[in-house]
Amino acid sequence: MPSGRWFLAAVPLALVVGHVWPERHTLVFFTSVVAILPLAAAIGRATEALAGRLGGGIGGLLNATFGNAAELIIGALALREGHVDLVKASLTGSIIGNVLLVFGAAALVGGLKHPVQRFNRTAAGLGTTMLLLSAIGLVVPAVFHRLAHGMTTSELRLDTEIAVVLLVTYGLSLVFTLRTHRSLYGVSPHQEANATEAVDVRRWVLILIAATVAVAFVSELLVRAVAATSQALGMTELFVGVVVVALVGNAAEHLSAVTMAADNQMDAAIAIAVGSSTQIALFVAPVLLLLSYVIAPAPMDLHFSTFELVAIGISVLAVSFIAHDGETHWMEGVQLLAIYVILALGFFFLPGT
Amino acid sequence: MPSGRWFLAAVPLALVVGHVWPERHTLVFFTSVVAILPLAAAIGRATEALAGRLGGGIGGLLNATFGNAAELIIGALALREGHVDLVKASLTGSIIGNVLLVFGAAALVGGLKHPVQRFNRTAAGLGTTMLLLSAIGLVVPAVFHRLAHGMTTSELRLDTEIAVVLLVTYGLSLVFTLRTHRSLYGVSPHQEANATEAVDVRRWVLILIAATVAVAFVSELLVRAVAATSQALGMTELFVGVVVVALVGNAAEHLSAVTMAADNQMDAAIAIAVGSSTQIALFVAPVLLLLSYVIAPAPMDLHFSTFELVAIGISVLAVSFIAHDGETHWMEGVQLLAIYVILALGFFFLPGT
Amino acid sequence: MPSGRWFLAAVPLALVVGHVWPERHTLVFFTSVVAILPLAAAIGRATEALAGRLGGGIGGLLNATFGNAAELIIGALALREGHVDLVKASLTGSIIGNVLLVFGAAALVGGLKHPVQRFNRTAAGLGTTMLLLSAIGLVVPAVFHRLAHGMTTSELRLDTEIAVVLLVTYGLSLVFTLRTHRSLYGVSPHQEANATEAVDVRRWVLILIAATVAVAFVSELLVRAVAATSQALGMTELFVGVVVVALVGNAAEHLSAVTMAADNQMDAAIAIAVGSSTQIALFVAPVLLLLSYVIAPAPMDLHFSTFELVAIGISVLAVSFIAHDGETHWMEGVQLLAIYVILALGFFFLPGT
Repeated sequence: MPSGRWFLAAVPLALVVGHVWPERHTLVFFTSVVAILPLAAAIGRATEALAGRLGGGIGGLLNATFGNAAELIIGALALREGHVDLVKASLTGSIIGNVLLVFGAAALVGGLKHPVQRFNRTAAGLGTTMLLLSAIGLVVPAVFHRLAHGMTTSELRLDTEIAVVLLVTYGLSLVFTLRTHRSLYGVSPHQEANATEAVDVRRWVLILIAATVAVAFVSELLVRAVAATSQALGMTELFVGVVVVALVGNAAEHLSAVTMAADNQMDAAIAIAVGSSTQIALFVAPVLLLLSYVIAPAPMDLHFSTFELVAIGISVLAVSFIAHDGETHWMEGVQLLAIYVILALGFFFLPGT
Repeated sequence: MPSGRWFLAAVPLALVVGHVWPERHTLVFFTSVVAILPLAAAIGRATEALAGRLGGGIGGLLNATFGNAAELIIGALALREGHVDLVKASLTGSIIGNVLLVFGAAALVGGLKHPVQRFNRTAAGLGTTMLLLSAIGLVVPAVFHRLAHGMTTSELRLDTEIAVVLLVTYGLSLVFTLRTHRSLYGVSPHQEANATEAVDVRRWVLILIAATVAVAFVSELLVRAVAATSQALGMTELFVGVVVVALVGNAAEHLSAVTMAADNQMDAAIAIAVGSSTQIALFVAPVLLLLSYVIAPAPMDLHFSTFELVAIGISVLAVSFIAHDGETHWMEGVQLLAIYVILALGFFFLPGT
Repeated sequence: MPSGRWFLAAVPLALVVGHVWPERHTLVFFTSVVAILPLAAAIGRATEALAGRLGGGIGGLLNATFGNAAELIIGALALREGHVDLVKASLTGSIIGNVLLVFGAAALVGGLKHPVQRFNRTAAGLGTTMLLLSAIGLVVPAVFHRLAHGMTTSELRLDTEIAVVLLVTYGLSLVFTLRTHRSLYGVSPHQEANATEAVDVRRWVLILIAATVAVAFVSELLVRAVAATSQALGMTELFVGVVVVALVGNAAEHLSAVTMAADNQMDAAIAIAVGSSTQIALFVAPVLLLLSYVIAPAPMDLHFSTFELVAIGISVLAVSFIAHDGETHWMEGVQLLAIYVILALGFFFLPGT
């Protein structure tokens, strides 16, 4: 996608607009969105190139990490400004967006080219179980919150301890995927072919770093403009967080998962989509919670709203229904996208608080 | 089942009773029920004969369509009379009845004859995912309703837009089953043998049409008598809708699914049971919702009661637990039937509103 | 584990402490706990020896029965003293403890020795479906309770009728596992080798009986001391019931499941963990409910608290996600244990009623 490079012109444009007309919120918001997309694409291309050297599953992991670098940056900046609900909404949106929208689009696009797409059931099964664990890590604090009114100290301790459990589990899952069961996520013959090409590792690493730094600057503008923009467009902050911000934050995963699915590399596509969602819940969310003690006006809690919990639960069930048989068809892509649209409609019509 | 033909005498009987003694509600109700059963059997036989020519999966689809023709007719007539809760209860009852009672009975009867019954996991997996999508399409409006008190306009728009999403997905699933992935639902060797027999297509099509028209007339009597009958028997309208009306409306599926399972054609049995449930949720429910704008005193909503949602969710999980390994045993039939009995007991004891 | 025998000295110690210083509740509680552990180990050894003669699945069943004998005894004694909430909490704790803690520890320990552990998917699938049925049997009364305020007579009838449905299903499942589909739970080559050793059946049966009787005596002390102990330790009775009592009551299953997993007999490990949970819900809970009419001050209901229901639902989903592919790895053990820790934290912080 070399044409994508032209869009990089949007990055300086966004920075200029954001500093010259900071009060034109909607304009700042949309130029930031437009600027993040090619940066995400650059991150995507860099990780894809590096992934080619490192093999499918690890490449997927690398992808997920850098897609989530954007999430982490946007989240930390929003927390610093006190937008706790926006952060939680964009975490929800990333989780459901990755498994429904990203994986759905990948299964649909891939399925239109290939009648049946097969993948490693064991790796996919471990991924969906991690996703279930993630959902549980988010549901338990929310249920607790509803049952234990006014016990703020207990709640904060529970949330923090659960965050630690999630981080430890995440660390152990890295040991599993990168050390003891590396072969499950191994290099496929197809990718080995790519790996023989000489890849200019240093160049891609530099691009990765530069694009990540640029994302941080642009994200700051986006976060500052989000409240005023959502008001101007008549959308709730919840909808903007769940759908718009999450969409932008996950553009990199989106692009690479669909590209890989079209290339019939469903293992990598699933590793990106599911891995990205679990990383949001097991890594980004706990890190933001712990960071919030330092950078935010008040510590962040993990009490997602009812509709967010329903959406997360539905997404986990849906992807496990689709992935358990180790095959996808285009219709399964349609099913995931239909579920995403139904949930997005719900978030759109839900009144703000 | 040629003996079933004698019961057709119940059809003129029901029409006579319904017009001569319209005030004897319980009598009208039960003669209508008795009249619908042989009509459903006739529909079942006709579709089975036609299915023999068209192959198992398509036959199952045909079956589901005509079983649901009865549902659609009863639903439209009940909506016209303003029985919105009865319609929703019978939709719930059809969904849980098909996957728990119909599929449970099929797995039990088939399992008593054959120690293990195998079926295509891919087709079954797609079916259960469609069922999950159906459940989501019904759960989201209900959750929304509980969260957005008094926003009737938003709710009606959300419900209508979700209905459109469900209908579009249903349409695409027909493209999948009938065109791009027809072979997944293809003719099995066993059925091919049947297909070589000369089938009098014209005769069976006529029977199908006549029985469907007769169902419409008898259903009208049934719908008119239902409120007074449930009162007379000390049952709530919810219980009558979920258990009695749904049982009658799905008698055709019931009979053919059990017959096919006994014949070790589990693919067809699942296609009927699961396909019928999804068709209720993705086709009958949205069509009734859209029709309600025209024929009903007030537009129908999609807010199912809590116990109905729990029952639907449980049914989807249960059938996916049973179907995912591509095998059934008689004990799995017992499990599904036990779940049905537990839910039916709950609906029985639940107080009316 | 011959060293375990020394701990049997704790049994007379507990009985002496319990009768000489009955008012030293915390001391009585902990000596009882320490006394039950070697008794459970003796039960475990006896059943393992007898299981060697009878084959893996049946051995698992035997194991589950005698592990649950302890549960049944503790439960009946607690009911007689009117501790209904404690009984329900320990039922919940046994269900989630067996599938999360016992099976999680088994998968982790086994997985550290063997990179992949395989087991019969059909048997595991039937087990998880029984577990789903169990969960439904507990969820429906609780949902009903929330919807039908003040209809105590209906509720009690519903609970009792559901208990009968669960017992009948349990009976039929015994017919399935012990008669019609015995081969699914059959003797593996590995175990056949053990079976050729001469096993002194009479000796082990005597040990089984003696240990079970001793458990009954010690349990009585434990039950009497539990309320005062939980108060002294600043824990709620809910937490003590769900975590501490359930842990003690399931020590036998714990030990044998882990031993078998380390020995790469995952079929037996799953049969113990999942079978034990379902037996709690389908056999122990209904029997205690029916017994409560005779022995308890008031009949026991089946209305579990919201957090208990969430915990049970999560456990069923988690084990089915893990078991459906017929393989476990150590990471799946970690996932189950992490879920257990998250739920236990929730129970710990939840305020008492």
